[in-house]
Amino acid sequence: MRAVVFENYQTFPELKDVEKPVPGPGEVLLKVAGAGACHSDVAIFQDFTEGAPGAQRPEFTLGHENSGWIEELGPGVEGLNKGDAYLVYGPIGCQHCRACSRGQDTYCENAATMPYMGVGLGRDGGMAEYVRVPARNLVPLGDADPVAAASLSDAGLTPYHAIKLALPHLNGGGKYALVIGLGGLGLLGVQILKALTGATVIATDMKPEAMAEAERLGAVTVPGGEGQIDRIREITGGRGVDAAFDFVGVAPTVKTAMESTARQGRCTIVGIAGGSYDWSFFTAPYEVELTSTYWGTIEELYEVVDLFNAGQLEPMYTTYPMDRALEAYQALVDGKISGRAVVVPHS
Amino acid sequence: MRAVVFENYQTFPELKDVEKPVPGPGEVLLKVAGAGACHSDVAIFQDFTEGAPGAQRPEFTLGHENSGWIEELGPGVEGLNKGDAYLVYGPIGCQHCRACSRGQDTYCENAATMPYMGVGLGRDGGMAEYVRVPARNLVPLGDADPVAAASLSDAGLTPYHAIKLALPHLNGGGKYALVIGLGGLGLLGVQILKALTGATVIATDMKPEAMAEAERLGAVTVPGGEGQIDRIREITGGRGVDAAFDFVGVAPTVKTAMESTARQGRCTIVGIAGGSYDWSFFTAPYEVELTSTYWGTIEELYEVVDLFNAGQLEPMYTTYPMDRALEAYQALVDGKISGRAVVVPHS
Amino acid sequence: MRAVVFENYQTFPELKDVEKPVPGPGEVLLKVAGAGACHSDVAIFQDFTEGAPGAQRPEFTLGHENSGWIEELGPGVEGLNKGDAYLVYGPIGCQHCRACSRGQDTYCENAATMPYMGVGLGRDGGMAEYVRVPARNLVPLGDADPVAAASLSDAGLTPYHAIKLALPHLNGGGKYALVIGLGGLGLLGVQILKALTGATVIATDMKPEAMAEAERLGAVTVPGGEGQIDRIREITGGRGVDAAFDFVGVAPTVKTAMESTARQGRCTIVGIAGGSYDWSFFTAPYEVELTSTYWGTIEELYEVVDLFNAGQLEPMYTTYPMDRALEAYQALVDGKISGRAVVVPHS
Amino acid sequence: MRAVVFENYQTFPELKDVEKPVPGPGEVLLKVAGAGACHSDVAIFQDFTEGAPGAQRPEFTLGHENSGWIEELGPGVEGLNKGDAYLVYGPIGCQHCRACSRGQDTYCENAATMPYMGVGLGRDGGMAEYVRVPARNLVPLGDADPVAAASLSDAGLTPYHAIKLALPHLNGGGKYALVIGLGGLGLLGVQILKALTGATVIATDMKPEAMAEAERLGAVTVPGGEGQIDRIREITGGRGVDAAFDFVGVAPTVKTAMESTARQGRCTIVGIAGGSYDWSFFTAPYEVELTSTYWGTIEELYEVVDLFNAGQLEPMYTTYPMDRALEAYQALVDGKISGRAVVVPHS
Repeated sequence: MRAVVFENYQTFPELKDVEKPVPGPGEVLLKVAGAGACHSDVAIFQDFTEGAPGAQRPEFTLGHENSGWIEELGPGVEGLNKGDAYLVYGPIGCQHCRACSRGQDTYCENAATMPYMGVGLGRDGGMAEYVRVPARNLVPLGDADPVAAASLSDAGLTPYHAIKLALPHLNGGGKYALVIGLGGLGLLGVQILKALTGATVIATDMKPEAMAEAERLGAVTVPGGEGQIDRIREITGGRGVDAAFDFVGVAPTVKTAMESTARQGRCTIVGIAGGSYDWSFFTAPYEVELTSTYWGTIEELYEVVDLFNAGQLEPMYTTYPMDRALEAYQALVDGKISGRAVVVPHS
Repeated sequence: MRAVVFENYQTFPELKDVEKPVPGPGEVLLKVAGAGACHSDVAIFQDFTEGAPGAQRPEFTLGHENSGWIEELGPGVEGLNKGDAYLVYGPIGCQHCRACSRGQDTYCENAATMPYMGVGLGRDGGMAEYVRVPARNLVPLGDADPVAAASLSDAGLTPYHAIKLALPHLNGGGKYALVIGLGGLGLLGVQILKALTGATVIATDMKPEAMAEAERLGAVTVPGGEGQIDRIREITGGRGVDAAFDFVGVAPTVKTAMESTARQGRCTIVGIAGGSYDWSFFTAPYEVELTSTYWGTIEELYEVVDLFNAGQLEPMYTTYPMDRALEAYQALVDGKISGRAVVVPHS
Repeated sequence: MRAVVFENYQTFPELKDVEKPVPGPGEVLLKVAGAGACHSDVAIFQDFTEGAPGAQRPEFTLGHENSGWIEELGPGVEGLNKGDAYLVYGPIGCQHCRACSRGQDTYCENAATMPYMGVGLGRDGGMAEYVRVPARNLVPLGDADPVAAASLSDAGLTPYHAIKLALPHLNGGGKYALVIGLGGLGLLGVQILKALTGATVIATDMKPEAMAEAERLGAVTVPGGEGQIDRIREITGGRGVDAAFDFVGVAPTVKTAMESTARQGRCTIVGIAGGSYDWSFFTAPYEVELTSTYWGTIEELYEVVDLFNAGQLEPMYTTYPMDRALEAYQALVDGKISGRAVVVPHS
Repeated sequence: MRAVVFENYQTFPELKDVEKPVPGPGEVLLKVAGAGACHSDVAIFQDFTEGAPGAQRPEFTLGHENSGWIEELGPGVEGLNKGDAYLVYGPIGCQHCRACSRGQDTYCENAATMPYMGVGLGRDGGMAEYVRVPARNLVPLGDADPVAAASLSDAGLTPYHAIKLALPHLNGGGKYALVIGLGGLGLLGVQILKALTGATVIATDMKPEAMAEAERLGAVTVPGGEGQIDRIREITGGRGVDAAFDFVGVAPTVKTAMESTARQGRCTIVGIAGGSYDWSFFTAPYEVELTSTYWGTIEELYEVVDLFNAGQLEPMYTTYPMDRALEAYQALVDGKISGRAVVVPHS
């Protein structure tokens, strides 16, 4: 079968023929419906070198945002039906530690000794005709369109997890949320906030189209530049927002997020640009929780699918057939993708 | 000034001339904008006898759902301006115990020795041209219409408090809430649930108009009668609702609420009809929290006003001028009120 | 190998020779260290009939409270070492639903179509020389004594889960907890409350020895009989307890638990005697959560082991060699066991 | 009466004769039992200049940690008895905003227009024979020794508030907490953690006596210097602590606190040394909440008194008679105080 393979560090992936995988014990073989191309894939094949933190050792098939139909059940798997559509939870831990027991493989306690981090992350992913995954990593899609859903397994789950942890700050009347960075994840963040809370969602980005899209989704927008924090605070009656989400993560956006947050609020940095922030007792607003976030849990992915099936989430994506899969990655490298590029191997 | 006075147990109130009140230390005199007539007033003047639980000793002016404009500041009150509009938090505790310190006078630890329970509940209320209230019981209305807001201090705060305590069960995608009883409080409950959560709201009532109104507000409705619980469970995919709110509280509605709730859900009985439910380990769904609820806190009333100012709450009410105030109570006694009757003394 | 087999409804189990099990995909074979005999086993072989709720279809080896050493790894299991000691999480769900994904197999969404409920509950349990269990159900014991730990997988996990859900009510100074019923689970409940909270623990039982033991563990005891609720309330300054745990569950104990609970408290019925309680808005204290509880999660079992390893839990048990295993059950039937009977097949 | 008066910025206070205060509406006059001398007083009279953030405009009597007996009730105060002993909640806000309504005057929404921040902070405090305070700021001491309790209103409440917000991270078996800085507040922090949680408390300080005291209180101690973080992590099995509390707040201690915290933990900077920390997505542990804290709420002060009355808190203090009050401040300036200096005006 054909697959997009990461062959070596700092090397653009290749589309090539590989063996069709065989599901192991407790695993399932999926016929891939859609596989999202993610910016972190670019980091894998373009930026990292051997041994760098976050580096995944080649060679393997890319693709950690996957959906598909069950093609074959591995030994010991029962109660699942061939042909049914599923979304795939990407992280794969040891499956027998405390964190894995609660379906949060991102924090597997044996990660250091695991040969991979997840589907398409150190082991073969879904940018291929077929992919094998542990049965427990499947979330049923029912009648939902698996191509449209594919990118939700990362681009939906990451903002969902961040927002879910912030909900105690957004529960109730008169709350405000801030979303900085209105790319794919940020716009899904706006939708999740609108769906799950009664908060006024304030959104900001450098691109006018992104701002327009956020407004269409129900956000109040504030342009960047001088006076931005004052304008955000003005909307909130001077108080600041109860929860800020920075989907960019460069130094200026982290600073804006923190300085826009009300006392006792929560400020989550989602974007992995790695900007630094000079925290001190007297410059950070009182009792604001500054935190990062990382992907999510299996159960949260069920809830993302619930939102999707209820029409509360609308991922933006462009499909690519298998033979144009590398174009998707090239477009990503070139910064020409808006929304998600989803490779559809069986189109 | 004129006031609607509860003169004796089991005696219809009188509209009569009384002294204009003088605000005491820490109090404010309000020129009344609106005073809601509540079913619990009927219990006070019609049902209770001396010493009965819940009885309030006559004589006093009725009205525990009030709004108004500051007319005069009592000794020691600073930082408030004459003419500004406020909603009044009705309960008044000792103001120096643990519960009062957190603005939850409903659970005042010295209630047993207090001569009254609140504004219009053992001490003079707002069914009059003027009312005096502690400054700390005021919630600013800003530019909002104080007449429209008046009834929110009970009819809005009661469902809000119940729902706020249930929000941890409703946070996230794929959640379901049930509202039984679509009178004034129930319909506000539907609106609060729609505003604050992404849950599918299932609503039920015996009156078709109430059902139609709930649908207009975004609820899915289910008629009563045989098979009702099955229909509710069917909407939830068999699982049951994550939070049920029974605004009636007779034995059959409590039973319906409990049997419609999913394992690990929350079932709040809001209605005070006092119906009993035969709880046992094997008949109640696993780990469901069965609970009651009672009014709310000052801070929650701020949040109710926030919802109202944001256009997320739309109380239904009919206004009565002062000289027709007794008609409002008569209509309430006769069961002819839909929404709230709000007496407007200065219309 | 020898095993204690439940052969038919309403039939005392037999000690017999059976095939040594072979671990399936994702499973592990354990050499059994200890297997606790539980009252619910007696219900299985003595009380239930075909089709009754809770009935488990024969024939299978009993024992759902197990510990042991890894003897053999099934296909697909990696990262575990032969000879290491583990405690076994008993419930086994489908392993690919929402509830199983969070390690709460007790609420498996596919329970209705599963042929068993857990180890020793519809499939072969640990009352034998060897037992096979899913690798994910193992909780490492480290250097802890696996015989002493065995019964914690139910007798420790059940009160732990109930208490953990009540901790928000017990967090802070000046809190009170009530434990009714000081058998094995109740005494572990006292220890867990003393370990995890600063609450004053009030305990009650009919047996003086049980009361003495609770006092030794740091509880304040109150005898049963007339005036009991008054005495409990007196200790709390009149307020009532913040969380009550009834390990008996007959009608009078449920009533005592509810009537001893403070407004806004939590009342958990742990004991499965199935007594009924006549709940109504006016008789239940305001906003008390009345709820049941059922076993726990894999992650909670890790935390129980943490408590055990830290010396904060001291299970009471008596060991029986394999050839006296039936005596353990007979003693249980006869009500002659105090603490847990733990069968030790390789002693 | 005699009082310790802050007369001007950067000027050591004077002990002088002033008018005995008269309680205003809603206020009470207390005969002072004890008044704690706090480091922040030193900042007030020694460090700040006019207009500096945190500066309190002279002239006023110092003392924001007070206890006393009711001497006189102001207009409108009912239900309190002369001679009864109380602890005083120090912050005083406008008393009619959202934050004040929940007893959290530290976050009064009208603070900017208030002429003072609290008792002894811009208005006359308790370092005098008598002090007037709002009745709602009183927390009853019952039979407890008001001199021993005095310093708890800040030195107890501040760590209590920080710890209470962190309890969700410390609930359960196998948890770890870190306390950096074992002065008066830090040692009370150790006691509160030991009282309210089952966590292993790891403590560190530069002074051997402080370390010894922490060990006596049940903490495990780790010395400072190289390898400190490794040693802390080793105690936790490599994982890090679930909640860290830094009572110093210089750059190195903030860094130690953050780097010792486990993923998903909470790191609270209590000490106001104002050290900065260079936060970034990749250097901070995943999903750790970095936050500050500020004093507490009235209700939390009730809970501190509950802990004190239950013998779970043991403040360390030295008493000074009124005519040696300035010595107490001099000792504080000179860094010669261990525990709290409590001025006892009526000794």
